[in-house]
Amino acid sequence: MAQKPSIPKGTRDFSPVEVAKRGYIMDTIKEQFKLFGFQPIETPSFENSETLMGKYGEEGDRLIFKILNSGDYLKKVDETLYQAKDSTKMTAKISEKALRYDLTVPFARYVVQHQNEIDFPFKRYQIQPVWRADRPQKGRFREFYQCDADVVGSTSLWQEIDLIQLYDKVFTKLNLQGVTIKINNRKILSGIAEVIGASDKLIDFTVALDKLDKIGEDGVKKEMKEKGISDEAIEKVKPLFSFEGSTTEKIAKLKTLLASSEEGTKGVEELEFITNTINEISLQTANLDLDVTLARGLNYYTGAIFEVAAPKEVKMGSIGGGGRYDDLTGIFGLKNVSGVGISFGLDRIYLVLEELGLFPETVALSTKALFINFGDKEALYCAKTIIKLRSEGIIAELYPDSAKMKKQMGYANKRAIPYVILVGTSEIEKETYTVKDMQSGTQNEMNFEALKDILL
Amino acid sequence: MAQKPSIPKGTRDFSPVEVAKRGYIMDTIKEQFKLFGFQPIETPSFENSETLMGKYGEEGDRLIFKILNSGDYLKKVDETLYQAKDSTKMTAKISEKALRYDLTVPFARYVVQHQNEIDFPFKRYQIQPVWRADRPQKGRFREFYQCDADVVGSTSLWQEIDLIQLYDKVFTKLNLQGVTIKINNRKILSGIAEVIGASDKLIDFTVALDKLDKIGEDGVKKEMKEKGISDEAIEKVKPLFSFEGSTTEKIAKLKTLLASSEEGTKGVEELEFITNTINEISLQTANLDLDVTLARGLNYYTGAIFEVAAPKEVKMGSIGGGGRYDDLTGIFGLKNVSGVGISFGLDRIYLVLEELGLFPETVALSTKALFINFGDKEALYCAKTIIKLRSEGIIAELYPDSAKMKKQMGYANKRAIPYVILVGTSEIEKETYTVKDMQSGTQNEMNFEALKDILL
Repeated sequence: MAQKPSIPKGTRDFSPVEVAKRGYIMDTIKEQFKLFGFQPIETPSFENSETLMGKYGEEGDRLIFKILNSGDYLKKVDETLYQAKDSTKMTAKISEKALRYDLTVPFARYVVQHQNEIDFPFKRYQIQPVWRADRPQKGRFREFYQCDADVVGSTSLWQEIDLIQLYDKVFTKLNLQGVTIKINNRKILSGIAEVIGASDKLIDFTVALDKLDKIGEDGVKKEMKEKGISDEAIEKVKPLFSFEGSTTEKIAKLKTLLASSEEGTKGVEELEFITNTINEISLQTANLDLDVTLARGLNYYTGAIFEVAAPKEVKMGSIGGGGRYDDLTGIFGLKNVSGVGISFGLDRIYLVLEELGLFPETVALSTKALFINFGDKEALYCAKTIIKLRSEGIIAELYPDSAKMKKQMGYANKRAIPYVILVGTSEIEKETYTVKDMQSGTQNEMNFEALKDILL
Repeated sequence: MAQKPSIPKGTRDFSPVEVAKRGYIMDTIKEQFKLFGFQPIETPSFENSETLMGKYGEEGDRLIFKILNSGDYLKKVDETLYQAKDSTKMTAKISEKALRYDLTVPFARYVVQHQNEIDFPFKRYQIQPVWRADRPQKGRFREFYQCDADVVGSTSLWQEIDLIQLYDKVFTKLNLQGVTIKINNRKILSGIAEVIGASDKLIDFTVALDKLDKIGEDGVKKEMKEKGISDEAIEKVKPLFSFEGSTTEKIAKLKTLLASSEEGTKGVEELEFITNTINEISLQTANLDLDVTLARGLNYYTGAIFEVAAPKEVKMGSIGGGGRYDDLTGIFGLKNVSGVGISFGLDRIYLVLEELGLFPETVALSTKALFINFGDKEALYCAKTIIKLRSEGIIAELYPDSAKMKKQMGYANKRAIPYVILVGTSEIEKETYTVKDMQSGTQNEMNFEALKDILL
């Protein structure tokens, strides 16, 4: 192979520093998931195609990576179908498995398959990669991790309250202060569509409203008009375009607007309970903001809708999202199981922490001390010391070859190893170590205890 | 979907307890990898097909999972090829990507692709799943994790010494005492083939010898004969069938046997240096055993060969293996980079720990305290307490619904939550908690400090 090898577009190699930084975020999330009583599960990377197909819409079906059957897979394709040379129909015959597209559908499948082993309400978390045959672009990959926490089996709003606290806690622990947790409720959106007489256009209406941030009031109005929403309805909805004030004020406005809609009123009551309770409990560093334009691919959610925005000084799409979806497991035949969950956007959180310089300095800390190799006799003395240091939790290494001093020192330098240890005949005799501080350049001879204290 | 959903054969769902136990093993391995100065990398789940194909032999090529191209992939297949209906030839046209088959080839690809960013010798570890379209059977899966540590860029035997210590340390930390680290050297096997005049039959010879454990001396002799190895050669090799004694004695025997072979003598010297040094350093709980029959898919290794056997009381195949392979990256055009590495067999280690009851009791510890939900007013009081407990590192939960007491207690019971906390109007007034110890059944009222002390 003459050419330098490469990886498929939309995928990534992660270097040691990147793995360490990603691990720091995932470990922080995982720790809070656990403290909140969520339990981990893992599902296979690929599922039977019928488990995934048809669950994410037509677009989703196309973006699912399919795995080719093994063996002489063409043999089983009948001649008529083969001659049609239709890729979509052929796929169903030559592929039975597909890579996970998200964690929610496999979770629903898990719950149904293992329903007799599960104690409901079941609080599970799952941190695993997913794959999408999307066109790769900046910040969008074909393989990426999802970090999800969901509860199934209870409609209690105390779950939503817990999940808001979970967001607050994770971002506080990541030192990312000032995130905004936006909250809305599908029932409010339905209620609005109802009172303006556009119930049949709920999806069009909310999709347009969701774009307020991006295309402004005029843009939203234009889109609503194009979708056949009447001028009268658009006029009624106007208060939403400048929906300012405190949460209490917003809720009062919504109560008035939605008084005639039973569903809308229910939505406001749910929101009121959640926001009042969070107010009582109070969050550490996050802000909770009622955002009535928030919809997030609405056909999914049935109650609360969440989305987390990074602190204002960073330009970045949402770094988390979620909501309540009644009947999560209905697609697999288990009815009436309500679920609510949130997700953390690992890649974007990474970019935000990077931009704000919030990764701890110690995050990628590796080798603390490199022992110079002057030959096998010296190396043996060093090897024995290294064992003792490692058992104290100190990362120490012997340079493997008795190469030229310059080469060994160069290696320590390039890897930013803070201490280099030199052991020659004299040190062996005296049972000491000559320690070079690579930053200051100073060099001192000392015994094991002193060495350990410096490296700890 | 009427049918209960299922997962593809050879794949697994992992329940919370299983994830916790697997995590315990992986975290233990990872901690030692780090202490030994190995740094983590991660590579994509799928690679370009040309990166993987042809690297694992014909059998390997068949066992690699191929990913179907997206879109109208049949359109690009020319008619002549299409009409041939040849699955293998078709695969090359309709699939460009394939799932990782092991971690070694992607690592070699990584090293070549990133050679300018890497400081050699490069010590990397990698813990990720791999996929093989193997026939599933007990203990053999189509998706499983590999845990590898390798060093590239140095031929120093101090690496082998470090890797043996790494095995010892990991199994000691897992409380799995008495594993046997078998060691051999490819050069010794070559040397034996040379001195018995069967150099041209090295692979056949070692494959047969490797089976001594399973098919016995007579079986091995029969297989060698079938492969065309002469009676005279088999007679010469006889001492290897009962190769007993201390390592020192074994090495002395090998020195005599291999005196006329330069390569064989080199292999013995390498082994002698490694075993002598390990003797000086001494291992914590593992035994190092020179096993001259050990070959492990020989065409791969060029120097040391390792394999780890579980303690004798457990019947289990190898729980780890590895060795040195010169020219790791040659397949991708970067010559003369020697590598040496070891791998831990997660699934088998899991089974061994399970069989010997070596998982810590606390491994799957989840919720410590469940707060009973008597209604929103009581729940709010509990929610505030729960926040304080969690910030102390205590896993605590509120039952989400104010369901019947019996249901809530039943939930605590089924999930084996050790403490149930009851808070009614009286407790709120007195700022206390009634704590039920689920094991003893005793119930006590106490303040927050006392509650915290019990749960910590």
